[in-house]
Amino acid sequence: MPENFADRLLEAIKTKNAPVCVGIDPVYNKLPAEITDQKDLNDEHDSEAALDAVLEFCRRAIRIVAPLVPAVKVNSAFFERYYWEGIEAYYELIQEASEAGLFVIGDAKRGDIGSTAEMYARAALADPDFVNMDDLVGPDAVTVSTYFGLDGLKPFIDVAREEQKGIFALVRTSNESAGVIQNAKLENGLTVAEHIAQQVADWARGEGLIGASGYSCVGAVVAARDKDQAVRLRGMMPQSILLVPGYGAQGATAADIAPYFKSDGTGALITASRSILYAFDDMKYVERFTSEWDKCIEQAAKDFIKEVNAVRPA
Amino acid sequence: MPENFADRLLEAIKTKNAPVCVGIDPVYNKLPAEITDQKDLNDEHDSEAALDAVLEFCRRAIRIVAPLVPAVKVNSAFFERYYWEGIEAYYELIQEASEAGLFVIGDAKRGDIGSTAEMYARAALADPDFVNMDDLVGPDAVTVSTYFGLDGLKPFIDVAREEQKGIFALVRTSNESAGVIQNAKLENGLTVAEHIAQQVADWARGEGLIGASGYSCVGAVVAARDKDQAVRLRGMMPQSILLVPGYGAQGATAADIAPYFKSDGTGALITASRSILYAFDDMKYVERFTSEWDKCIEQAAKDFIKEVNAVRPA
Repeated sequence: MPENFADRLLEAIKTKNAPVCVGIDPVYNKLPAEITDQKDLNDEHDSEAALDAVLEFCRRAIRIVAPLVPAVKVNSAFFERYYWEGIEAYYELIQEASEAGLFVIGDAKRGDIGSTAEMYARAALADPDFVNMDDLVGPDAVTVSTYFGLDGLKPFIDVAREEQKGIFALVRTSNESAGVIQNAKLENGLTVAEHIAQQVADWARGEGLIGASGYSCVGAVVAARDKDQAVRLRGMMPQSILLVPGYGAQGATAADIAPYFKSDGTGALITASRSILYAFDDMKYVERFTSEWDKCIEQAAKDFIKEVNAVRPA
Repeated sequence: MPENFADRLLEAIKTKNAPVCVGIDPVYNKLPAEITDQKDLNDEHDSEAALDAVLEFCRRAIRIVAPLVPAVKVNSAFFERYYWEGIEAYYELIQEASEAGLFVIGDAKRGDIGSTAEMYARAALADPDFVNMDDLVGPDAVTVSTYFGLDGLKPFIDVAREEQKGIFALVRTSNESAGVIQNAKLENGLTVAEHIAQQVADWARGEGLIGASGYSCVGAVVAARDKDQAVRLRGMMPQSILLVPGYGAQGATAADIAPYFKSDGTGALITASRSILYAFDDMKYVERFTSEWDKCIEQAAKDFIKEVNAVRPA
């Protein structure tokens, strides 16, 4: 087993022939009735019951997708909304996903400066020299804010290097208004996102970060909708694995995500969240599996992999 | 009592004649021996004991500064490092600070898009329609990432408007390498931070956000070191209260922070963290109060207020 995070992730993608990641963004009122109808889980207004239902659903969803995909991305916000009990559930889920053989990306987009960034980094990646909680399993990688520059990233990069983990630095997001800031043009002709991409490429080349595959444990979150920008960002960060959100429910199609792969078919991890997790609300799957929500999720994950592989360079 | 967040904060600043905020960034190995020597609190490697010690120290520090300053800023990272138990302590402390009559700013710098941003916003500001935890007290305001643009901010602004709370949008940070990104020059001559400041000024003018004082519940985090940029940023966001970190331990002096005030002496809330919280490590105070750490903190807070008022326009 190769040790570098990027090498390990690429190997898992290859083994499963699936350059994809399922996003775990659980919302109580979207859960299948089979779960929320259980007597002790059926009260959205009882925070504890709601969280139990969310956790039960996520566990089962993770077990369904674990044989198919190499990675899941667990979104911290959907757990933080249940405060400390939610955070405990977030780490329980990370542990279970790890035990199911999945790479786990903690999507928390933390960022700060100096000693504060170090706190976030060592806690979020569960640096064992720091945590003093023997059996705590942290994620394999986390998403990180880039607005603070290298000072903000360095503590994350240091922990990633030491612990053979990874980070995905925020470069370009998929939301409507992001362009006002991220696509603002600099004097040198680059957009702000491209300028940050150049920085990420520099950071990714740091000593001890690049694996045998040529990829670094410093990846990037990139979700441009426009094809030209996707091609440019891919080219600007040749040693970074790109974590690409926005597939499915957020509107990105297979054609949109093709430019994030290199010509050898590596370099991108495409993420879909709601379109997999709530496939049992999609008529396409309901018609076929009626109320068997687990089969809807399984089929949606299979279709997702097939769609991505169809546009991925061979 | 005026209802708008900015109005209430300005009134508290006026009442205490102290446009300052004490940052609560607790670190176990900096705590006074009087606390860590207690039998049940003296083990840094026992996460529970360490957190109890941290909480005890923060409680006492908050009680010391509460009669002097209008606001405290509690830094989430220093609690998240103790995982779910740390988050519970973070909210306990917020509640105690509120009960002590302080404005509480939750410094968590969260940011994301769409429904994820909404989760963060409603949870971080403890929107009562959402939380279902009867007695949970959230902070009066939170710091928020701006890189996602308006979509990322809007859920926070909406909760702030409904709940008469506030946000401080991240514009300029004080760390060394921040300039690589935040001071990059745009085609139109503005820096990235100034471009974001213009956006913040727009957002701050939204309906229902501006109080009788003329200030908005949408403030900004600004920590430029260079005086010209400070003056420009102050001018660009005329309706935002500026939360200015970096005083004291981070190296900013009273002269550096003067430009953040308007000519009537309003508009800025200057934050010092380590220089107050760990004043008992500062020879200036040790010589005077020896091991009475509480008196060191009290005197440092008084000196801080005096220094800031000395440069604040009358």
